[in-house]
Amino acid sequence: MCGSSSKANGMRPLLDSSVAIIGLGLMGGSLALALRQRNACRALLGVDVSADTRAQADASGAFERTSADLALVDQADIVILATPVQTILELLPHLGSIVREGTLVMDLGSTKRQVVHAMAGLAPRARPIGGHPMCGKETSGFGVADPDLFKGAAFALVPLERNDDEAYALAESLARAVEARPIRVDPVRHDRIVAATSHLPFALASTLMALIGELAQNDELILALVAGGFRDTSRLAASEPSMMLDVLLTNADNTSELARTFAQRLTKLADLIERKDRDALRTLIQAAAKERREVQRS
Amino acid sequence: MCGSSSKANGMRPLLDSSVAIIGLGLMGGSLALALRQRNACRALLGVDVSADTRAQADASGAFERTSADLALVDQADIVILATPVQTILELLPHLGSIVREGTLVMDLGSTKRQVVHAMAGLAPRARPIGGHPMCGKETSGFGVADPDLFKGAAFALVPLERNDDEAYALAESLARAVEARPIRVDPVRHDRIVAATSHLPFALASTLMALIGELAQNDELILALVAGGFRDTSRLAASEPSMMLDVLLTNADNTSELARTFAQRLTKLADLIERKDRDALRTLIQAAAKERREVQRS
Repeated sequence: MCGSSSKANGMRPLLDSSVAIIGLGLMGGSLALALRQRNACRALLGVDVSADTRAQADASGAFERTSADLALVDQADIVILATPVQTILELLPHLGSIVREGTLVMDLGSTKRQVVHAMAGLAPRARPIGGHPMCGKETSGFGVADPDLFKGAAFALVPLERNDDEAYALAESLARAVEARPIRVDPVRHDRIVAATSHLPFALASTLMALIGELAQNDELILALVAGGFRDTSRLAASEPSMMLDVLLTNADNTSELARTFAQRLTKLADLIERKDRDALRTLIQAAAKERREVQRS
Repeated sequence: MCGSSSKANGMRPLLDSSVAIIGLGLMGGSLALALRQRNACRALLGVDVSADTRAQADASGAFERTSADLALVDQADIVILATPVQTILELLPHLGSIVREGTLVMDLGSTKRQVVHAMAGLAPRARPIGGHPMCGKETSGFGVADPDLFKGAAFALVPLERNDDEAYALAESLARAVEARPIRVDPVRHDRIVAATSHLPFALASTLMALIGELAQNDELILALVAGGFRDTSRLAASEPSMMLDVLLTNADNTSELARTFAQRLTKLADLIERKDRDALRTLIQAAAKERREVQRS
């Protein structure tokens, strides 16, 4: 036993690896379907507490085995945590005593500081790394899992100081296997970025939908006169609430600060509109339109 | 001449009508293509100041004739103003002396109080009515005109006190001819509603894009890590700036008030996030998710 460090254990390539996915919702289910469809790994194991979900996963034919028991992952070379962030934080301490020597432990959570901090405390036999594929839907569950969900999406990879190059390379090959674009980023920077690109947009969509919902109670024509633009802007409000709650709470500092900044900007815009300051408004609107048109793949 | 009131003039049905469209951008161009594809009227005339646009319109084969000269509309039974709102307000006074007796004069502008007020001043031979199809794209110009743009969309019709039933029925048949859903609404209510369903969402998208654009100047990874959610929420920011400027300025009271209300709500949300008030956040997020999932055709 002594001297058998994780480094001494060469990692199997993805193709020879058994991959266990914990949490078979939209993200975990899609990852399984994506790997299976592309024959990217040797075996797929699935863990989910819901018997219904396991039945769906079994029926899909993607998994060699599914179980409600976390102990299933002791057979895996790669363990992927695909649950909401709070559940990832609760499961991680248990994994340290279950996984076998040298197992890559990755998550798909939407925030990374707390997850990576928890990963840093794992037993040395685990090789943890943070992951966050930048994709999703406003529907959830294995039933809407999609083997092409990750196609073309950025896939943030957040290595720990204890990571060796081999672990990072294996995580990268997994991201590439599902046709995502791996992007290396540190956890602090990651969480600051997603506050802007994902958590603030969710906060806006949710607040907009709540406001419109209230107004609609006093005027039944409001929902009848809703156009495509409103649908786009409010779409994220339909995101799975339990997932988003964890996300907001594990990125509370960045998200609340940015939401305040946004509210100040919007109030300034309201001032310009009220004053009918055509020139200042034009400058703002034109600059934003130019920026938006430059955003690729819109 | 005496005694020949507009009422005495029976209006031709749409099928026998010559329709003149002023402004051959996305909306006017799409209306022309929609009417032509469905053989819904007798003839189509097009007015646009841009020679390039007229050349595109001519090449489409949708129009019997196009011109830069507003005088072309004296041949029409129905005149549709499909320019930005400010231009509609500038053109309307000229139309009164050009159109022939009994001509239906409708607009497609996104705000209705100022337009309908200007329409009320038209000479009696015109039969003005406000219109606002609730559809659009974030691209503009005849080149992106789409004969199915109006399909399934709400089409607000805003009658004037001077309108007779016949004029309203003709406007309604035009909306139905392009497969839109005509919805009768008064101008004050219309502008209050679209502030919530359209102009606030634009203000949010534009402010979000401006903020992200600024942040992206300090971190090049921001735009690389942009996911689909951000694209949806910010999509409206790419709307044609000149059109949106007119919209905001002709609905300044409603839009600025609602933007302030939104900013206050968002600040309260930021407070809850900062305090990590899980229960209050869950209640808010769940209610908004439920409302959003109930919005049809999302």
